[in-house]
Amino acid sequence: MDDASRSSVKEGDECIFCLIVEGKRDAAVVYEDDAMMVFMDKYPISNGHTLVIPKRHHTTILDMESRDVGMLFALVHRVAKAVVSALNAQGFSIAQNNGKVAHQVVPHVHVHIVPRFIDEERGRWPSRRTATMDELRSVAERIRQHLLNNTNTMDVELITD
Amino acid sequence: MDDASRSSVKEGDECIFCLIVEGKRDAAVVYEDDAMMVFMDKYPISNGHTLVIPKRHHTTILDMESRDVGMLFALVHRVAKAVVSALNAQGFSIAQNNGKVAHQVVPHVHVHIVPRFIDEERGRWPSRRTATMDELRSVAERIRQHLLNNTNTMDVELITD
Repeated sequence: MDDASRSSVKEGDECIFCLIVEGKRDAAVVYEDDAMMVFMDKYPISNGHTLVIPKRHHTTILDMESRDVGMLFALVHRVAKAVVSALNAQGFSIAQNNGKVAHQVVPHVHVHIVPRFIDEERGRWPSRRTATMDELRSVAERIRQHLLNNTNTMDVELITD
Repeated sequence: MDDASRSSVKEGDECIFCLIVEGKRDAAVVYEDDAMMVFMDKYPISNGHTLVIPKRHHTTILDMESRDVGMLFALVHRVAKAVVSALNAQGFSIAQNNGKVAHQVVPHVHVHIVPRFIDEERGRWPSRRTATMDELRSVAERIRQHLLNNTNTMDVELITD
């Protein structure tokens, strides 16, 4: 899968995801805590395409400790459940790319959560497009509600056979 | 990305990954402990394409606890480092698909580690092919050695800019 941001990777010398973490660049934020941040991909592969990042700048996960990668993906799991539940998705993929040859564009570790729907065209990933900030904020708010409302007790059912 | 196994998903009523865990079906195993197993994908996207699974059967990660998903990906991180180091890859992707619409074929949670190389054709994922068990065992052994030799102290460098 291609990477999150096809626009400028850096503004000046700064990483755009670090700028989002610092509040210097706009994003449709779903959640944040001391260590992590969750926001909508500006170039979504599907409606609800969400990114989870560690706030601290690491270029690839090879620059992180295994334990911290585990904590990152534990949050990815919680967020994925909220995304699926908020969007009524029938499936989802998690993807995390490291290095240019793996199509990483923004050089700050990020995990893609891409919900999938049975009414999408099958077999091919649809073209990515630029979403408006209003669209992104609206879906971010829906996902946030599902994340806060203890989605563990919710019925989330994927189609697996 | 398509899923790991295009051949029969089930033998009788059994999940093929459960059969591998039980030693009833052949696989090129890199590593196992009480909770996890690591083996080579039989239909590799690239040389070194590795799968990490929890031994316990869960259809998707929504059936798992966040903590266990975190532990799974902490191991994925360690294995990815060994894969990159053993294969001299310049990048890698991690992918984990849930549900048929997300191209999950084997209904047992598994995480793909796909090393990427600068001499691959860019832009497109190459077609998958069936690897021989000898090829798979040979690369599994190389990855195992890197995993055992404390790859944390090794120089692993991706091309990130």
